[in-house]
Amino acid sequence: SSADPAESVKVHEFCVYEMNERDRGSPAVLKLSQKPVFSLGDLIPFTNKLYTGDLEKRLGISAGICILIQNKPEMKGDRYEAIFSLYFGDYGHISVQGPYLTYGESHLAITGGSGIFEGAYGQVKLQQIVYPFKIFYTFYLKGIKGDLPKELLCKHVEPHPDVEASAAAKATHPEAAIPNFTD
Amino acid sequence: SSADPAESVKVHEFCVYEMNERDRGSPAVLKLSQKPVFSLGDLIPFTNKLYTGDLEKRLGISAGICILIQNKPEMKGDRYEAIFSLYFGDYGHISVQGPYLTYGESHLAITGGSGIFEGAYGQVKLQQIVYPFKIFYTFYLKGIKGDLPKELLCKHVEPHPDVEASAAAKATHPEAAIPNFTD
Amino acid sequence: SSADPAESVKVHEFCVYEMNERDRGSPAVLKLSQKPVFSLGDLIPFTNKLYTGDLEKRLGISAGICILIQNKPEMKGDRYEAIFSLYFGDYGHISVQGPYLTYGESHLAITGGSGIFEGAYGQVKLQQIVYPFKIFYTFYLKGIKGDLPKELLCKHVEPHPDVEASAAAKATHPEAAIPNFTD
Repeated sequence: SSADPAESVKVHEFCVYEMNERDRGSPAVLKLSQKPVFSLGDLIPFTNKLYTGDLEKRLGISAGICILIQNKPEMKGDRYEAIFSLYFGDYGHISVQGPYLTYGESHLAITGGSGIFEGAYGQVKLQQIVYPFKIFYTFYLKGIKGDLPKELLCKHVEPHPDVEASAAAKATHPEAAIPNFTD
Repeated sequence: SSADPAESVKVHEFCVYEMNERDRGSPAVLKLSQKPVFSLGDLIPFTNKLYTGDLEKRLGISAGICILIQNKPEMKGDRYEAIFSLYFGDYGHISVQGPYLTYGESHLAITGGSGIFEGAYGQVKLQQIVYPFKIFYTFYLKGIKGDLPKELLCKHVEPHPDVEASAAAKATHPEAAIPNFTD
Repeated sequence: SSADPAESVKVHEFCVYEMNERDRGSPAVLKLSQKPVFSLGDLIPFTNKLYTGDLEKRLGISAGICILIQNKPEMKGDRYEAIFSLYFGDYGHISVQGPYLTYGESHLAITGGSGIFEGAYGQVKLQQIVYPFKIFYTFYLKGIKGDLPKELLCKHVEPHPDVEASAAAKATHPEAAIPNFTD
């Protein structure tokens, strides 16, 4: 007979692009399994750039590790366990954990956050666009105080293989980056 | 004078068996410490099979990493920091973090989840049955919407060293596996 | 028009010192990048000692891993992604994830907990005092049932480079350690 507090919680939905522009030395492929194909034992630390869903502003970086769980020859891909954070400059960060499937979309858990994301929970959808260079995230964020900044609530560009951040965002011009964007 | 919202939250209790049936190439013991006994620096990625507490249905897999923290010769075992997820097919996943002691039981934190486990928090008790092949989990899950599926609420088999999944569950017969069980 | 449940939640603030007294074989610096400076690919499992903010009682240990993300020559330091737990003996543990910057302070997410910390969320401020041997944490903890034990609510010693645990706490005398402190 308890009330369900989950029912009345606001879901903050927003989109983020993660782009590997090949200038951060990422990923670091640690072939610790010492096997020819990707196998349990291989570890892949990574850090890429994050942009707003409209690709007009640089947000920050991703930072974390992918743990190879299983090569799936029938899917022509791999299952990873991914543990990482997304950094949003002065706004703070969001930590996530869950499946990363190189052959499809998946949902990860939001495990917490800092700054405006303090108290964050919920889940995030990961859609791969170009492996392993372009990923599109849709956050379904709960638990935060207040509303998200306008930059994060922009209308997103539909994911497709040719998406790229705007030239100004790539160059991190002041009007094309959030305050103290993470780098 | 604030109300305590924790008081009225429903606890969903259910049990899961994790079984290493030695057919997934797991664990990968990475002896990166380069020391003869297990030492800080050693890492152990792993992935095992998950079954319902009554051992009648295949649920999915575990996936993650154990970080060797300290060998405990007086306990004839080791302390690990464990970071992993439990996958339940179409139902989603639960992420956890905390202590794994090869010589006793422990409680890990539930850090989040996806699917029917979206919003999950609370703790899970880990009981080792046969090291490192059979583990019994009791979840004390909070924060999810709705009730757990019936399969997860089955009466569990008491943990003992001879427990094994049913032949049908091992063979993942349709009636002995949840929808799209994770593999 | 939904109520904001975050508004009425109690914040439990307390401080903890993490000390590397060079007797736990920590950290284990895994130079897996095979590059001369710290680079993506390097991993640093670690475990240090935890003391109360007044440095009068041994609490337990930290245990986890730092993932090198980027060397920052202009800051004379490094960015890590840190994933670890803090152990408080019979009281339980707190798991955290987020940034560790060797050149400044940062905020990590509290991703969960066990024991008296079951249901924990919020954030923790990490202040480096002496790299990499002395760290000061200020927890802003939400979601737990009841109040924190008195030991944790002590008046803290202001962080400065010369801080050290009391001799009794270092020696883990019964009156200078919490019940069944983690070791």
